[in-house]
Amino acid sequence: MGKGGMSQGEGSKVEEENMAAWLVGLNTLKIQPFPLPTLGPHDVRVRMKAVGICGSDVHYLKTMRCADFIVKEPMVIGHECAGIIEEVGEGVKHLVVGDRVALEPGISCWRCNLCKEGRYNLCPEMKFFATPPVHGSLANQVVHPADLCFKLPENVSLEEGAMCEPLSVGVHACRRAEVGPETNVLVMGAGPIGLVTMLAARAFGVPKIVIVDVDDNRLSVAKRLGADGIVKVTTSLEVDVVGVFRYKNTWPLCLEFLTSGKIDVKPLITHRFGFSQKEVEDAFETSARGSNAIKVMFNL
Amino acid sequence: MGKGGMSQGEGSKVEEENMAAWLVGLNTLKIQPFPLPTLGPHDVRVRMKAVGICGSDVHYLKTMRCADFIVKEPMVIGHECAGIIEEVGEGVKHLVVGDRVALEPGISCWRCNLCKEGRYNLCPEMKFFATPPVHGSLANQVVHPADLCFKLPENVSLEEGAMCEPLSVGVHACRRAEVGPETNVLVMGAGPIGLVTMLAARAFGVPKIVIVDVDDNRLSVAKRLGADGIVKVTTSLEVDVVGVFRYKNTWPLCLEFLTSGKIDVKPLITHRFGFSQKEVEDAFETSARGSNAIKVMFNL
Amino acid sequence: MGKGGMSQGEGSKVEEENMAAWLVGLNTLKIQPFPLPTLGPHDVRVRMKAVGICGSDVHYLKTMRCADFIVKEPMVIGHECAGIIEEVGEGVKHLVVGDRVALEPGISCWRCNLCKEGRYNLCPEMKFFATPPVHGSLANQVVHPADLCFKLPENVSLEEGAMCEPLSVGVHACRRAEVGPETNVLVMGAGPIGLVTMLAARAFGVPKIVIVDVDDNRLSVAKRLGADGIVKVTTSLEVDVVGVFRYKNTWPLCLEFLTSGKIDVKPLITHRFGFSQKEVEDAFETSARGSNAIKVMFNL
Amino acid sequence: MGKGGMSQGEGSKVEEENMAAWLVGLNTLKIQPFPLPTLGPHDVRVRMKAVGICGSDVHYLKTMRCADFIVKEPMVIGHECAGIIEEVGEGVKHLVVGDRVALEPGISCWRCNLCKEGRYNLCPEMKFFATPPVHGSLANQVVHPADLCFKLPENVSLEEGAMCEPLSVGVHACRRAEVGPETNVLVMGAGPIGLVTMLAARAFGVPKIVIVDVDDNRLSVAKRLGADGIVKVTTSLEVDVVGVFRYKNTWPLCLEFLTSGKIDVKPLITHRFGFSQKEVEDAFETSARGSNAIKVMFNL
Repeated sequence: MGKGGMSQGEGSKVEEENMAAWLVGLNTLKIQPFPLPTLGPHDVRVRMKAVGICGSDVHYLKTMRCADFIVKEPMVIGHECAGIIEEVGEGVKHLVVGDRVALEPGISCWRCNLCKEGRYNLCPEMKFFATPPVHGSLANQVVHPADLCFKLPENVSLEEGAMCEPLSVGVHACRRAEVGPETNVLVMGAGPIGLVTMLAARAFGVPKIVIVDVDDNRLSVAKRLGADGIVKVTTSLEVDVVGVFRYKNTWPLCLEFLTSGKIDVKPLITHRFGFSQKEVEDAFETSARGSNAIKVMFNL
Repeated sequence: MGKGGMSQGEGSKVEEENMAAWLVGLNTLKIQPFPLPTLGPHDVRVRMKAVGICGSDVHYLKTMRCADFIVKEPMVIGHECAGIIEEVGEGVKHLVVGDRVALEPGISCWRCNLCKEGRYNLCPEMKFFATPPVHGSLANQVVHPADLCFKLPENVSLEEGAMCEPLSVGVHACRRAEVGPETNVLVMGAGPIGLVTMLAARAFGVPKIVIVDVDDNRLSVAKRLGADGIVKVTTSLEVDVVGVFRYKNTWPLCLEFLTSGKIDVKPLITHRFGFSQKEVEDAFETSARGSNAIKVMFNL
Repeated sequence: MGKGGMSQGEGSKVEEENMAAWLVGLNTLKIQPFPLPTLGPHDVRVRMKAVGICGSDVHYLKTMRCADFIVKEPMVIGHECAGIIEEVGEGVKHLVVGDRVALEPGISCWRCNLCKEGRYNLCPEMKFFATPPVHGSLANQVVHPADLCFKLPENVSLEEGAMCEPLSVGVHACRRAEVGPETNVLVMGAGPIGLVTMLAARAFGVPKIVIVDVDDNRLSVAKRLGADGIVKVTTSLEVDVVGVFRYKNTWPLCLEFLTSGKIDVKPLITHRFGFSQKEVEDAFETSARGSNAIKVMFNL
Repeated sequence: MGKGGMSQGEGSKVEEENMAAWLVGLNTLKIQPFPLPTLGPHDVRVRMKAVGICGSDVHYLKTMRCADFIVKEPMVIGHECAGIIEEVGEGVKHLVVGDRVALEPGISCWRCNLCKEGRYNLCPEMKFFATPPVHGSLANQVVHPADLCFKLPENVSLEEGAMCEPLSVGVHACRRAEVGPETNVLVMGAGPIGLVTMLAARAFGVPKIVIVDVDDNRLSVAKRLGADGIVKVTTSLEVDVVGVFRYKNTWPLCLEFLTSGKIDVKPLITHRFGFSQKEVEDAFETSARGSNAIKVMFNL
């Protein structure tokens, strides 16, 4: 926030210095300037208002990697986010300045077979917030394709908008598993993804949902959020089934669930932090500590 | 069947004379004796407690036919029913005397290709209550295959059990149309079948349901039962799309919807009658008159 | 069945004594009398003409068990079969004496949920040829439900008819895997089931099929039968994925494949034997020895 | 494009003047200069070698419209085409100069919901060869996105490559109808689209295909190409079911069918013409005359 600047209204020539949370080394986050790219005809510039911390963000912080993705150069972190439109490209028709939007974080190529088949979540050239070497969205502002910014209904808050990202994982899992009124569901793990999967399954009409975890606190949260049954296991299982990768076309449905009240994600947000160097560090520490934090959210 | 004749007594050892509502001619129903068949090893004998009137029942009464089915000889009417088990065949394992059950009315051959593919609702040799020349179930007692009798959960009434039959049409339509949280539904007609289809669609997670009818009263019922939108049309449409025939494997799901409270069919039952000659006549007259009667139910 | 006993004669009016191959103990088969049950109204009596040996038959002979099924009392073996109708029940309409038929070996209950959903192959009360305690079909005659006897087209031989059984496993796997012109297929194992799966996949339009085995001879057979690629592995893999159980509704499609020439199963029949005590023993020994025998067939 | 204009030279460095067949008015085609656009990083420049005439091309010529699309300004015609790569954009990886390619003619937006769901054939912002106001491909050269240019296998000719476009309609219909070895197919109409649908259905494993038309000659072609049955009708039917729009993701499968020999489209090409003013006129006249011309092809 440079003094006085604020002329960002003109094109993308923003005087104010845009700041972001950079992962600069093991266990080291720094709030530093983050220059914005030129706004393309189909892009929008968004002032971030709510950004959640995902387990993968913590993982990058603690190990500089997540699965096969390795952080080799400083990278802006964060990918669960919502904000307010401040500028729109000349080809953008469905959004105007002032709109509150949730951001889908992945930009796929639309030239490969997977994209053309509508399986863009599997695109090998995907550019995804905070997946190295692509920068994330824990920043004052980002530039993003307009078609990946979904306008929030009036009764959906910016924080709930940011929750569309983890919720999308649950929605995608429910679609892939074709759950419905004739399916019973067993959810393995009562962390944020397990919990949103449970909520999504309920909204798909699933009559009975049982959830398994090693942690009493997480199980009691699951119970409170509506699990029909909870099962505590004393050791981790040797289960390793991977069948869901990210999500696709989920934001509209998430917003439908939120606006109709079929899903309430607010109880999942257990901690909130501002956007200073210290608060960013504290937030990640809280998220990393574990079971009593479900979703840690930044309010920018 | 003169008095004393009672050949049904030999099979199922019932002293009492079993009475049923016979369609004996145009606009003519008579309560007359109805001998019961011998109880087979996989059959049960059920004392009927609730029987609903369907539009097809009224149609048979008024025209002696329905679609291509023609009533050529006197036939017992009625097929939406529930009752209490009074006798079980020796091979029946899942039901005991005293169980309250809803009856699925069609007995299919299980030898044709359609049955083997699980599409038994299309079986060309189907024997279906009150579809000539097969007798129906508006009677004190009937003998029926045990696997077509579904035990009612404690919190589901016998009347609700009888409603599983029309509700099944709605459930089957929802399955066939693969409706869910990402489908919007337009229901053509707010009669009993339109209304149960609306209720079923809601239980399948459909977010928005609009219903169309020519009748203000029916539309206001639809609205009260939860339609998101109602549309009055002034003339019947020249729409004639037939894609759903009866139902299959629906009773367990109907009972799940009823016991969990996801569907409440009670508001659909607008009139109740006992089982005397006069009441049967009055009930059919009420059902035939139209819009203010949704579902007319006999309590036997 | 002492002399004169002939209790089967009463039901089906057969003077001749019916003989079958009984598994009477470990590694011990005996050709002994096998009384026929009474012919029901929907049954036929079939004179067996071709019976193949399945790996499960050999397994029962060598260990008296297969998976969880244990042979506790003497049992007639065999379940891949075809023959000629000699008698039909009074309710049978689609078959007449003299018809050549392939037999589907499993009789399911049609009262459980799985049967009603068309998944009768999973019926827990399935009565299946040569699955203890149910007798098999390596006999001069058997009585079987008419709806499980499929009339052979003129250009399909009785031996090919018997091959419908193993071919059905391949067809069912192809259906379950939804293979087609846009699927490539890897078949694990080039035994009879692997080979029929390969042939079925080709008939479903699969463009490329690779088959894996430990045995050179089997792989060369696979290559000759049309595999696009073969892969020899030197040790068995620690792969244990079970996703297909038996088959359902496959005979009509198998016969379509055979009559149209899309599938030729004749090269799979590598050995033929008659139905004497010695030949039955030799046949099983040949089948048990392994790789150069693909399908061993009895001609009765 | 006045003499010496060469403005296309600036973009793609082509000295030669590019010519195309322009629809300039009712029944009037003119071969005139057609400037090429600048080559983008993901584009290729293709020298056209084979272009087929579609019924829609003839329709535009005869009426200046097709369905709701109206030709308001001169437009280059043609959209069934194949050619040889002459220049590739800097971002193109899978194609090199000299590659023979078949062109998929529609460029969709990849920003709308339909595109993202993989249903890009329904994109409301589709830019499709020779669908006004977008120019077509009956030209010496065109610039096109590289991901819509599919390299031909060695044994597939450029003419066969051009036939991928009509064949795609048949392939898409077969996919939509989920045809396979257990489906019988009735094709309404034995024109080019009916015939390629028949060929595609066969390649999907369909055992029995019957085709209906009003024209004896077309039916005899259908018979010769493998129809199991043909049915002549004397008047057009009042049938108007539209369920298939264009196609998507079909070129790879078409090429698989062509290279494997599962489909032979060569017999469909009944007439060939060069690319002069007179030949273009004659070709369209031949195509418009009807039944003895199946597919009219330009060799450029």
